[in-house]
Amino acid sequence: MNATIIFIIVGIFVSVLAFVFAAWLFLWVKRQPKANDTIETIGEYIRRGALTFLRKEYLVLAKFALVLAVLIFVFLPIPIWKGNFWENLTMAITYLFGTAFSAVAGRIGIEVATIANKKSAHSAQIGIQPSFLSAFRGGAVMGMAVVGATLLGVCLVMWITGNTTMLLGFSFGASSLALFAKAGGGIFTKTADISADLVGKVELGIPEDDPRNPAVVADNVGDNVGDVAGMGADLFDSNVASMTAALVMAASLDKAGGTSYVALVFCYAALGLLASIIGVFFAKMGKTGSPTRALNMSTYITTGIFAVFTLIATIIFGAVWKANPAVELYSAWSIYGAAMVGLFVGVLIGIVTDYFTDDSKKPVHEVAKASETGPAFTIISGVSYGFLSVLPAMVGIAISALVAYTFAGMFGISMAAVGMLSIVGMIISNDAYGPIVDNARGLAEMGGLGESVIEVADKLDSAGNTVKAVTKGFAIGAAGLTVIALLGAFMSEVNDAIAEINAAAGYVVHQALTGFDVTDPTVFFGLLIGAAVPAVFSAMLMLGVGRNASRMVAEIHRQFNEIPGLKEGKPGVVPEYEKCILIATSGALKELIPAGLFAIVMTLVVGFVGGVSAIGGYLTGNIVSGLLLALFMSNSGGLWDNGKKYVEAGNHGGKGSPAHKAAVVGDTVGDPFKDTAGPSINTQITVVSLVSSLLAVIFLTVSLF
Amino acid sequence: MNATIIFIIVGIFVSVLAFVFAAWLFLWVKRQPKANDTIETIGEYIRRGALTFLRKEYLVLAKFALVLAVLIFVFLPIPIWKGNFWENLTMAITYLFGTAFSAVAGRIGIEVATIANKKSAHSAQIGIQPSFLSAFRGGAVMGMAVVGATLLGVCLVMWITGNTTMLLGFSFGASSLALFAKAGGGIFTKTADISADLVGKVELGIPEDDPRNPAVVADNVGDNVGDVAGMGADLFDSNVASMTAALVMAASLDKAGGTSYVALVFCYAALGLLASIIGVFFAKMGKTGSPTRALNMSTYITTGIFAVFTLIATIIFGAVWKANPAVELYSAWSIYGAAMVGLFVGVLIGIVTDYFTDDSKKPVHEVAKASETGPAFTIISGVSYGFLSVLPAMVGIAISALVAYTFAGMFGISMAAVGMLSIVGMIISNDAYGPIVDNARGLAEMGGLGESVIEVADKLDSAGNTVKAVTKGFAIGAAGLTVIALLGAFMSEVNDAIAEINAAAGYVVHQALTGFDVTDPTVFFGLLIGAAVPAVFSAMLMLGVGRNASRMVAEIHRQFNEIPGLKEGKPGVVPEYEKCILIATSGALKELIPAGLFAIVMTLVVGFVGGVSAIGGYLTGNIVSGLLLALFMSNSGGLWDNGKKYVEAGNHGGKGSPAHKAAVVGDTVGDPFKDTAGPSINTQITVVSLVSSLLAVIFLTVSLF
Repeated sequence: MNATIIFIIVGIFVSVLAFVFAAWLFLWVKRQPKANDTIETIGEYIRRGALTFLRKEYLVLAKFALVLAVLIFVFLPIPIWKGNFWENLTMAITYLFGTAFSAVAGRIGIEVATIANKKSAHSAQIGIQPSFLSAFRGGAVMGMAVVGATLLGVCLVMWITGNTTMLLGFSFGASSLALFAKAGGGIFTKTADISADLVGKVELGIPEDDPRNPAVVADNVGDNVGDVAGMGADLFDSNVASMTAALVMAASLDKAGGTSYVALVFCYAALGLLASIIGVFFAKMGKTGSPTRALNMSTYITTGIFAVFTLIATIIFGAVWKANPAVELYSAWSIYGAAMVGLFVGVLIGIVTDYFTDDSKKPVHEVAKASETGPAFTIISGVSYGFLSVLPAMVGIAISALVAYTFAGMFGISMAAVGMLSIVGMIISNDAYGPIVDNARGLAEMGGLGESVIEVADKLDSAGNTVKAVTKGFAIGAAGLTVIALLGAFMSEVNDAIAEINAAAGYVVHQALTGFDVTDPTVFFGLLIGAAVPAVFSAMLMLGVGRNASRMVAEIHRQFNEIPGLKEGKPGVVPEYEKCILIATSGALKELIPAGLFAIVMTLVVGFVGGVSAIGGYLTGNIVSGLLLALFMSNSGGLWDNGKKYVEAGNHGGKGSPAHKAAVVGDTVGDPFKDTAGPSINTQITVVSLVSSLLAVIFLTVSLF
Repeated sequence: MNATIIFIIVGIFVSVLAFVFAAWLFLWVKRQPKANDTIETIGEYIRRGALTFLRKEYLVLAKFALVLAVLIFVFLPIPIWKGNFWENLTMAITYLFGTAFSAVAGRIGIEVATIANKKSAHSAQIGIQPSFLSAFRGGAVMGMAVVGATLLGVCLVMWITGNTTMLLGFSFGASSLALFAKAGGGIFTKTADISADLVGKVELGIPEDDPRNPAVVADNVGDNVGDVAGMGADLFDSNVASMTAALVMAASLDKAGGTSYVALVFCYAALGLLASIIGVFFAKMGKTGSPTRALNMSTYITTGIFAVFTLIATIIFGAVWKANPAVELYSAWSIYGAAMVGLFVGVLIGIVTDYFTDDSKKPVHEVAKASETGPAFTIISGVSYGFLSVLPAMVGIAISALVAYTFAGMFGISMAAVGMLSIVGMIISNDAYGPIVDNARGLAEMGGLGESVIEVADKLDSAGNTVKAVTKGFAIGAAGLTVIALLGAFMSEVNDAIAEINAAAGYVVHQALTGFDVTDPTVFFGLLIGAAVPAVFSAMLMLGVGRNASRMVAEIHRQFNEIPGLKEGKPGVVPEYEKCILIATSGALKELIPAGLFAIVMTLVVGFVGGVSAIGGYLTGNIVSGLLLALFMSNSGGLWDNGKKYVEAGNHGGKGSPAHKAAVVGDTVGDPFKDTAGPSINTQITVVSLVSSLLAVIFLTVSLF
C-alpha cells in the first residue's frame, strides 16, 4: 500500500469523523428547548419556503446538469468517437457526483439552519451565551458537512479512478452547481430583502421584521437560501477546486520525482478538517466576551492548530522523503512554507477587510459622516473606500503567489490556496452563523419576545456581519490563488494534449506552450475580453435583482391595499407570505441562467476564435478583473451595511435623520453588491477556469486563429 | 533629403496651417457681437477665475516639472555618471518642452472658451444656428491648437534630435502635465458643480444657474478648467503618446528594413490634421437640423476625408516602396488596413457608447424608470448598465488589436491607435464645444435673456452631452491601443538596453525578453498590483472631490446666512463668487498631487521589487483594469446625467417628482465618475507606461527578484 492510498484512507476517516461530529452537533441543536407558538409557526413558514425554493432550484439545475453530463459524456475528456467510452462515462458520472455532493451539502445546511434560527431566538431569552451557541453550532453543521463532503468526494474520486483529470470533472460539477446556486440564492435573498425594506422601512416606516410585511418571511427565507445554501455551495466549490489544482500538479510531480506529493495534499486537507473540528468543538463565548471575539478567536485557534499539525506532518514527511531514494523536487519544508504563506495572507486579508467594514474604523465613520450631505455622498465615499480596499488584498495575493512560487513553483501556489482554505470548516461555520442569527433576530421580533431579547439578537447579528467580512476576504483570497493555480493546471492539460497529439502524428503538430505572453496578440485579445466578463456577469445579476424586486414591490403594495386590516395590524390578519416567496423563487430561477450561460458561452467563443493562447489570456483577465470587482463589491457593500448600522446606533442624527435615510440608500445599493454579484464572481471565475481546462484539447484543435 | 525629413517638413507645414486656421477662427469668434452688461460682467468673473486657477496650477506644476527635469537630467536615459551629459540634458529639455506645449495648448483653449461662451449666449437670442457656430468654432480653436502643437512638437523633436528615445521624454512631459491638469481640473469642476447643485437645486430649490448662488461662477469656471483645459491636456497627451509609440517602432523597422515607415507615420498624422481642418471649416448646422446631427456629421465627414487621403498616400507610398530595392517588412496596404481598423473601431465604440448614454435609448429609459423606486435603484441600474457598456468597447479594442497585429505586428497596433486618433482635431473641437455651450446656458440664465433663449441654449447643451459620450469612447479606445503599443515599446526599450549591457560585458548578462508570460510569478505579481492601481487612483480623486465639496458647501451656507438679502435676491446684492473659486482652486491643488504620485510610486516599487518582468505584468494589469474602470465610470456617469435630463423633460413625473430626486442623486454620483476619475484614468495609464519605459534600464539592473 503506497502513501497515497494511506492518506486517502486517512482522508476518508477524517471526513467520516466530520460527518459524525456534524450529526452530534445537529442533534445537540435539535435538543435545545422549543420556542413559542408564533416563532414555531413563522419558523415553519421560513423552513417550508426555503425547502420549496431549494426543491424548485434543484429541479431546474438537475435538468441543466443532465444536459451537461450528456455533453461531457460525448465530448470529454476527448470526443467519444476518438476516445474511450468508459473514460467519458466516468467523467460524466464524476461530474454528476460533484453536483450531487454540492446539492446535499446545501440541503443539510438548510435543514439545520432553519431549526437553529428558532432555537437561537428562543434561547436569547435566557442569555447571549446559549443563543450564540445554538447559532454557532447550527452553522458548524454546515461547515462540517461541506468540508467533509469535499474531502470524501475528492478521496473517493481519486481512489476509484486514480486519475486527476476525473477530479476536474468532479470539480466542474461542484462549481457549475455553485454558480447557479450562488446566483439564484443571491437574487432570491436580495429581491426579498430590498423589497421588504423598501415598502416596510422606507415607505411605511414599520420595523425591519414586522410580521405585517408580506415580504418579511421571504426575506428570512432568502438568508437561508442565499447565505447558507448558496455560500455553502460556493465554498464547497472553492475547496474542491483548490484541492483539484493541487492534486493535478502533485500527481505530475509524483510521476516526475517518485515522491508522495499527492499524499501530502491529502494529509494537509485532513489535518485542516481535523483542526476545524477541534476549533468548533471548543468554541464558546466567554460570559463577558463579545460574540465577534468568540468567532474570531476560534478562527485564530484553528489556524494555530493547523499550523502545528502540519508542522509535525512536515517533519515526518521530510524524514520519510530523506530515507526514500526518490528525487525530491520540492522539500517538505518548502511546501509547508507555501501553505503557511497562504494561511498567513488569508488572515491578513481578513484583517484588512475588517478594517474597511468594521464600524469602529475610519471608513465606516467617513461613509456615515458623508451621509449627512445626502445619499450621493454615501455612494461616492462607499465606492471610493471600496476601491481603496482592493489594494491590500491584491497586494497580499500577489506577494503570497510570488513567495509561494519561489518555495515550490506553481505547485506552491496551489498549496498556498490549500493552506488558505485549510480552515474552511471553521470559516463556513462562522459564515453560516450569520444568517442564522439574522433569522433569529427576525423571529424574536415577529414572536414578540420584547426589546431586551431583540437587543441580544441584534448584538449577535452585528457580530455576524463583521465576521462575514473576514471570511469573505478569505474566500476571495483563496479563490484568487486557486484560479492562478488552475491557470497552471490549464497549461499542463494543454501540454499533455499536445504531447499526445505529437506522439500520435509522429511529428510536431503543435509546439508545447511555455506560457501565455501578453505581447502575443491572441493572449491580449483574450485578456481584454476576459476582463469584461465579470463586469457583465455582475451587471446581469444585479439587473435581475432589480427586475425581480420591482415585481415583488408591486405584490407587497397589492397585499397592503387589498387585504383589509393588514396595514393597521388587526389581530388575526396575516399577509400571504407564500406569494412573495413564490415571486422571489420564480424570478430567481428565471434570472439565474442567463448570467451563468453568458460566462460559459464567452469562454467558448474566445476559445474557438483565439485558441488556447487566447484562453490563457482570457483566464488571466477574468481572474484579475474578477478579483478586483469581487473585492470592491463585497467590501463596499459591507461598508454601507455597517455605515447604516453605525448611524442607527445614534450617530449623525440616528434613526430617521437625513443621514439615516442616505445611509439606507447606501445599504440598499450594497445589498446586491455584497450578497448577489460580489460573491458570485468567485464561482464565475472557477467555472470558467474549469471549462477551459476541460475543453483544452478541443480549443487546441479547433480555432480560428 | 530623405523621406523622413520631407514628411517632417510636411508635418510642420500642416501644423502651422492649423495654427493659422485657429487664429482665423479665434478672430472670427472675437468679432461676433458683444453681449449685454450682466453677461459681460459675469463672463469676466468666469474668465478671471479660470485664468487664476490655471496660473496657480501651472505654478505648482512648474515646480513639479522642474524637479522631474532635474531627476531626468541625472538619471535618464541612463545615469549621467555612466552616460552622456548632452543626451541627458536633451532629454530633460524635451521633457520640459512637452510640459510647456501642453500648458500653452490649455491656456489657448481657456482664452477662447471664455470668450466664445459669451458670444454663444448672446447669439442664442438671434437663433440656434449662430449660437452653435460661435460655440463650435470656439471649441475648434482648442482642437486646432492641441493637434497643431502635437504635430509641431513631435516633428521638431524628431528633426532636432533624430532620436525616438527623446520622444519618450517629450511624451512624458505631456502626460505628466496632463495627469495633474486632468486630475486638478476634474476635482475643481466637480467640487463646484456638486456644491452648487447641492445647496442651490436640492436644498433651496433655486434654478441651476441662479446668480444668487455663490458657487455658480465657480461651476462655470470648472467647466473651463476641467473640460476645456484638462481635456485638452489629456488628448494632447494621448495623441503624443500614440505618435511616440508608432514612431519608436517605425524607427526600428526603418533600421531593419530601410523603408520609410517613420515618414509614413508623419504623413498619416499630417493628413489627419488636414482632414480635421477641412471638417471644421465646413461644419455648420442646417436650418432645421439638430446640433447633435451637425456635430456627428462633421465627425463622420472628417473620418471619410481621412480615409480617402490616406488611401491616396498608401497608393503613392506603395509605388515608391515597390520601386525601392529595400526590404518591405509590412506593405503600405497592411499599414493602411491597421489604421482603418482603428478608425472603424473608434467610430464603433463611439456608437456603442452613444447607445448606453443616449436619452432615446433603453439604458437611459431604464435608469429613469428605476428612479421611480428610489435613488438606490437609480444607482444599481446605472452601475449595471455601466458594467454592461464595458463589453462592446473591450471586445472592439481586443478585435482591433488582434486584426491590426495580423496586418503589421505591434507596429500595426500603434498605427490602429494613430488611425483612431487621426481625427482628434475634430474630436477636441466637439468636446470643447460642450463646456462652452454649458457656460453659455448659464450666462443666458444669469444674464436674464428669458425662457426661449435658455431653451435654445439647453438644446445646444444637451447635444454637447451626447457628443461627449462619443468622443470619450474614442479617447478611451485610442488610449487602450496606445498603451498596448507602449507595452511593446517598453519591451523594445528593455531589449535595447539588454543588448547594450551584453555587448559591453562581452558575455550574456541578461537574456533578451521574448515577452511577458503570465505564468511567470513576477509577471503575475505585477499584474495583480497594476490592476489595483487605477481603482485606488480613482478613489483618491473622488475622495478629494468629496472633501473639497464639503468645504465649499460650508462656505455657501455661510454666505447665504451672513450676507443679508442674498437668499431673497435683493437687487444689488452679489455673493462673493471669488471665495468659492478660491476654495475650489486651493482644494484641487491640494488633492491632485497624492493620487498622481501614488501611481508613479507604485510603479517604482513594483519595478524595484520585481524588475522588468513585473513591470510588464504591472502595465498589463494597469491597462486592463484601467480600461475597465474608465469605461464603466465614464459611461455610467453619462447615463445618470442623461437619465436625470430625461426625467426633467417630463417623464416619470418630471421635475420635482420623487423620480427626479432619485435621478439627481444618480447625476451627482456620476459627476466625479465621469468628469474626475473616469477620464483621468487614461492619463494615469499613459504616465505609468512612459515612466516604465524611461526607467527600463534601471529596473533591469536594480531589482529584488
